[in-house]
Amino acid sequence: MQISNELFLRAFTDERLPRPPVWLLRQAGRYLPEYRASRAKYARFMDACRSPSFCAEVLLQPLDRYQLDAAILFSDILTIPDAMNLGLSFEAGEGPRFSKPLRDEATIRALRAPELSSLQYVFDAVSECKRALTTGDTQSVPLIGFAGSPWTLACYMIEGAGSASEFASVRRMLFQRPDLVAHILAVNTDIVADYLEAQAHAGANVLMIFDSWGGVLSPMQYAKYSLPSIGKIVAALKVRLPHTPIITFSKGAGHSLAAQSECGADAIAIDWQTDLARARSAVGSATTLQGNFDPALVTTDDATIRRTVAETWEGFDPCRRYIANLGHGITPDADPALVGALVSAIRDTGSQQICSMNL
Amino acid sequence: MQISNELFLRAFTDERLPRPPVWLLRQAGRYLPEYRASRAKYARFMDACRSPSFCAEVLLQPLDRYQLDAAILFSDILTIPDAMNLGLSFEAGEGPRFSKPLRDEATIRALRAPELSSLQYVFDAVSECKRALTTGDTQSVPLIGFAGSPWTLACYMIEGAGSASEFASVRRMLFQRPDLVAHILAVNTDIVADYLEAQAHAGANVLMIFDSWGGVLSPMQYAKYSLPSIGKIVAALKVRLPHTPIITFSKGAGHSLAAQSECGADAIAIDWQTDLARARSAVGSATTLQGNFDPALVTTDDATIRRTVAETWEGFDPCRRYIANLGHGITPDADPALVGALVSAIRDTGSQQICSMNL
Repeated sequence: MQISNELFLRAFTDERLPRPPVWLLRQAGRYLPEYRASRAKYARFMDACRSPSFCAEVLLQPLDRYQLDAAILFSDILTIPDAMNLGLSFEAGEGPRFSKPLRDEATIRALRAPELSSLQYVFDAVSECKRALTTGDTQSVPLIGFAGSPWTLACYMIEGAGSASEFASVRRMLFQRPDLVAHILAVNTDIVADYLEAQAHAGANVLMIFDSWGGVLSPMQYAKYSLPSIGKIVAALKVRLPHTPIITFSKGAGHSLAAQSECGADAIAIDWQTDLARARSAVGSATTLQGNFDPALVTTDDATIRRTVAETWEGFDPCRRYIANLGHGITPDADPALVGALVSAIRDTGSQQICSMNL
Repeated sequence: MQISNELFLRAFTDERLPRPPVWLLRQAGRYLPEYRASRAKYARFMDACRSPSFCAEVLLQPLDRYQLDAAILFSDILTIPDAMNLGLSFEAGEGPRFSKPLRDEATIRALRAPELSSLQYVFDAVSECKRALTTGDTQSVPLIGFAGSPWTLACYMIEGAGSASEFASVRRMLFQRPDLVAHILAVNTDIVADYLEAQAHAGANVLMIFDSWGGVLSPMQYAKYSLPSIGKIVAALKVRLPHTPIITFSKGAGHSLAAQSECGADAIAIDWQTDLARARSAVGSATTLQGNFDPALVTTDDATIRRTVAETWEGFDPCRRYIANLGHGITPDADPALVGALVSAIRDTGSQQICSMNL
């Protein structure tokens, strides 16, 4: 399969690019009226995720509006815990809830990885997304598959809900029964690796691991509990899929960028609380960085966006080993016109940057 | 006035102590049944804060239960915005809300610091707390006064509520109208300095500045917006009250500990996501550190607490320029017996530590 726009893939090499590629975390989502219209056909969020045709439909929506250099599978990081039968539901305005969280030793010891076949709907969605991106034998932009990190999945599986308490139940278990947490992490690590591999076989060109709650840990705990399981997945995938680039994203873990770069992933995504220039000096020149505009930017105005893009790249080379993106997902209150303004500002400023450097 | 237990004050000097002093963030609070009984007499939280006798009553409750080395004024960081007539209320389970947040230029330009006299109830509470700690001419333990940082107060004043959105409105204003944010910060800086000085005159022995939301900023924004206003307050207080120790606490800003130590405060408090040994090497040997046990610890068990206290101090000297504390406030689900276990573990482990080092 040919890919007509390979700029995103070239950002994983040492090549100097004419401008940085750009895509946006949660680029298909509630800020788009056409997404809300598509979503309204499904009663429950997970029902929508289970429909490959829905996934492909909303995948294309931001690509139709904006000049983006990558598409990302429409899915959720909680597909794996859902397949473990922990009773996942999404309450309106409240985020995910599990009716059967992992709280006692017997339940945790009995935890098994789900059969990959129970996640076939995700691999079907990847294939359907791939087809949607393809005309004849040419794919328009690369497709990113993704999964939650073992630690982040464990947070939801133990707490049974989102972050209101900064996962106090999880931190309690980490203190009292680190062996039980380690067991959950081991189960998650194996299944996440297999799950990502299957997404690649179904057509994903790049894989991303979202460690959304790495930042609730201290640097020492992060190095002990979250990072090693990410490292094992990267190592396994590098054997099985040596040519598939991998991006890792530990939100709130800007304290450990050097350690992250030692995990062997091709790219490290950073949140908006981490400076790009500092991140570059922490990870060195051989790791691609992705990020990190504040999602609040796409609620401001065009002039502010253009000024901020230029300021963000001061002292940083956006044309080599860099993927422009947000530092966290687009929020529902984002203005679709300003999302377009951000993409344009990134493309224009990025092009000017290389022009001026070539003078 | 004599103070019979001066261990806490000695932690601001280079002296080697027989054990680290200990007090706990939010040591008077909802986890204590006697606090809930006292609080039930007032319909609204701010009514309770406005009663000096209530403040003194709940100040003593944790001191009666535990062997603590300091008392902290019972009050709230939002007393100053409340005195600015922004319509503060506390909704049950939701945290603070302002009915008149600062959203437009005219309102912001019209913002004035409140008269100190409108905060007289706080200074009366300090005096009452001081009296409650005193028998004859001897005060039992030092009394800490406190205020929110200019940035953290601005977060609430602009957003009008707590952190559910990570202060998206504030981040938007920071992008679009940094001049307006700077104006709010300037107003807050002057009043916070005067407010803390008045607390010292009313009897506070040590002053603490809570920058609870410093961590929503990137390191560059933190250095530009939060830290300078804290630095100005510390500098002003060091002229007016050269002998009053000052503690600063920027939660989530472990990325900027060296910069924090350059502000001139006597002590820097750190959150539980920051390692003590790393913090020590960042701030050097002339700055006292305070922290940083995870509040989840006091929901575990005695053995876990003892083990964790010892582990937390590995590679760290707790007997010099260090104050043992939590890395965030005690939560309502804390077990009062385990709070006692933590205080005992800190006292015992701290004593053993110095003993073994003296062998």
